[in-house]
Amino acid sequence: RINSDRLWDSIMEMAKIGPGIAGGNNRQTVTDEDGEGRHLFKRWCDAAGLEMGVDEMGTMFARREGTDPDALPVYVGSHLDTQPTGGKYDGVLGVLGGLEVVRSLNDLGIKTKHPIVVTNWTNEEGARFAPAMMASGVFAGVLDQADVYEHVDKQGKKFGEELERIGWKGAEKVGDRKIHAFFELHIEQGPILEDEGIDIGVVTHGQGLKWLQVTLTGKESHTGSTPMPKRRNAGLGMARVIELVHEIAMDYQPDAVGAVGHMEVFPNSRNIIAGRTVFTIDIRSPEKEVLDAMDGRIREGIDTICEALDIQYKIEQVGAFDPVTFDAGCVKAIRDAADRLGYSHRNIVSGAGHDACWINRVAPTAMVMCPCVDGLSHNEAEDITKEWASAGADVLFHAVVETAVI
Amino acid sequence: RINSDRLWDSIMEMAKIGPGIAGGNNRQTVTDEDGEGRHLFKRWCDAAGLEMGVDEMGTMFARREGTDPDALPVYVGSHLDTQPTGGKYDGVLGVLGGLEVVRSLNDLGIKTKHPIVVTNWTNEEGARFAPAMMASGVFAGVLDQADVYEHVDKQGKKFGEELERIGWKGAEKVGDRKIHAFFELHIEQGPILEDEGIDIGVVTHGQGLKWLQVTLTGKESHTGSTPMPKRRNAGLGMARVIELVHEIAMDYQPDAVGAVGHMEVFPNSRNIIAGRTVFTIDIRSPEKEVLDAMDGRIREGIDTICEALDIQYKIEQVGAFDPVTFDAGCVKAIRDAADRLGYSHRNIVSGAGHDACWINRVAPTAMVMCPCVDGLSHNEAEDITKEWASAGADVLFHAVVETAVI
Ligand SMILES: NC(=O)NCCC(=O)O
Ligand SMILES: NC(=O)NCCC(=O)O
Repeated sequence: RINSDRLWDSIMEMAKIGPGIAGGNNRQTVTDEDGEGRHLFKRWCDAAGLEMGVDEMGTMFARREGTDPDALPVYVGSHLDTQPTGGKYDGVLGVLGGLEVVRSLNDLGIKTKHPIVVTNWTNEEGARFAPAMMASGVFAGVLDQADVYEHVDKQGKKFGEELERIGWKGAEKVGDRKIHAFFELHIEQGPILEDEGIDIGVVTHGQGLKWLQVTLTGKESHTGSTPMPKRRNAGLGMARVIELVHEIAMDYQPDAVGAVGHMEVFPNSRNIIAGRTVFTIDIRSPEKEVLDAMDGRIREGIDTICEALDIQYKIEQVGAFDPVTFDAGCVKAIRDAADRLGYSHRNIVSGAGHDACWINRVAPTAMVMCPCVDGLSHNEAEDITKEWASAGADVLFHAVVETAVI
Repeated sequence: RINSDRLWDSIMEMAKIGPGIAGGNNRQTVTDEDGEGRHLFKRWCDAAGLEMGVDEMGTMFARREGTDPDALPVYVGSHLDTQPTGGKYDGVLGVLGGLEVVRSLNDLGIKTKHPIVVTNWTNEEGARFAPAMMASGVFAGVLDQADVYEHVDKQGKKFGEELERIGWKGAEKVGDRKIHAFFELHIEQGPILEDEGIDIGVVTHGQGLKWLQVTLTGKESHTGSTPMPKRRNAGLGMARVIELVHEIAMDYQPDAVGAVGHMEVFPNSRNIIAGRTVFTIDIRSPEKEVLDAMDGRIREGIDTICEALDIQYKIEQVGAFDPVTFDAGCVKAIRDAADRLGYSHRNIVSGAGHDACWINRVAPTAMVMCPCVDGLSHNEAEDITKEWASAGADVLFHAVVETAVI
């Protein structure tokens, strides 16, 4: 079993970097705080005798050598970036859980045939720069590196320039590494495991996602003196699209979800009819057909809404991944580990996107989940118990070692 | 008649200060640009031999002496502040039209019995700091000076501190001046005069207004992994309130309008259900009963919406004025002036709020309106013709002089 005190202490230590305003974290990707978190992680990796590689997307690969020079490494990790109002565990548990795997191997003096590489993928959250899972997407060949370098945050800063500014743009070409298997430990971010009192989620599938960024263009005018029929209200248009997305998601739930979390209003003055709004629709489903059907209905609905309000629209897809089926062998390694360790477990579908979803396209991959309080995530109050964390890390340890020894 | 070239040139000169991004202006109240605009106005007043007074709200009073030391002054003016994406004429026409009145009197060597005071009221727009017509509201005794000093903009800066910072907080106590009559020239900001091909709007009434700032509090959570029934979505709540306000306004129009132009979303991340939204409802009607009925229905509707979504709400009234009936004598002076000058005219209700609406409570007051292209205002593309401007200023000149000589 892993050292659960050490794991927990490391999580608490990392949480000191980029503290939030309500007990969580604001350590958004390629900010100074992200840079600081990376330095701390590197110091820990150095102390554990790992060899650090950094690729052109800033992804960190900390390698523990294996005994067979021809064996491909087993990768294990997640991400250290957070939402602007994020929790202490989302992503961090997976990276430091991976570190705890090699620390425990060191303690026990165990050598594995395959090297083990603890990984911190850059910009998993997609909060500052769309899309989410950016670096793993480039690694898997589904996103274009030159393109994502140009993506801008709300201040107009470019991802590539910010990565360089914080000093974590490495020289290694992205995606060149060959992977024997990839394992990611993550909090569930949903309520199922806690509700059912189950220790371990064996993640068999992941939901697919689409992010549609919509720009509505109406006409700025006076809220007092513009007659109602003369208005071309981009704010009202946004409101109707938000309701539309909700209604469509309700039609398909529990096999789908949908919401708008990001909204910008121009010029955003109390007495000006909004001339322009920009917002992102987030729809998800484990069924590709459902996702496509929702996408179609949303586009049709936006067209109808905008025609009625005499406003223009533009829809850009700024993020997307298809539903994922994880590798049967890796999934079995996780289930077997949970069984062996005596933890209760069940199969589960990941509601969120994860780096594992992209890496699954280029290597056998699976995920371990542990419960989180009230299913709450993307909230500073996100919480887990030390016991949940160490059960998850134990299962990760066994699955990784099992895969790395043979 | 006034000198229409000089009036137009002055408007164009003022428009160079705080240029917008699309041909209009961004000279929001108590910004550096507002300070610069005030200096230009003061230089012009000095050159016209006027005596400048500034009160504790920063309102500027430029006085041309009368012949009777006991006669109260006739006030004439409007505001020089703009929306963040405002036009060149909204407010500016009224202040520089007032200046043109005294310049023309100087040209003609006419002395009036009553002094004439050209006025620039601070923060008419209410864009940066609610409420609108702030300084005239304090002058009229309906707003509390100590209270509005504490009002903050989106950056958390206080109105009182910003007024002091730009150097335009005067020593004169607000509201001490006694006013014989007040006249304000303004663009219509609506489509009626242009549609009907009429030169002059004789403003008999003004719509009443309420600004209700609503804060909805739900729960931040993950857009992917939070089941639909578990969501407490403050963004969806805002969308429903925006639609509610629109529906209620449509029920009462053309005797009412309603919209939401200001919206803030927290934490405003693509994959976080909004935990909090803050937005301002703007409802207006010339009938107090209608305004009150709308207010009641909106509050009821918000309660229902929030109960269904399991979110909390807070409603604060951040601006309000009752419908206004302008002074019959002043209104007649404007109508007579238009008749005498041979301009076509009609009675009109102001859709927007104006400083005249507050001053009407403490002194006989009326307004002159001129058309604007397509009824468009609170838009950088706001436009008027030189002929419309000079017709308005001619009528203002005659109404002011008529009132000031006897
Ligand atoms: N796990 C997680 O929160 N990932 C962020 C990407 C997403 O929105 O699913
Ligand atoms: N005239 C004008 O636009 N005033 C601003 C206050 C309002 O919203 O009516």
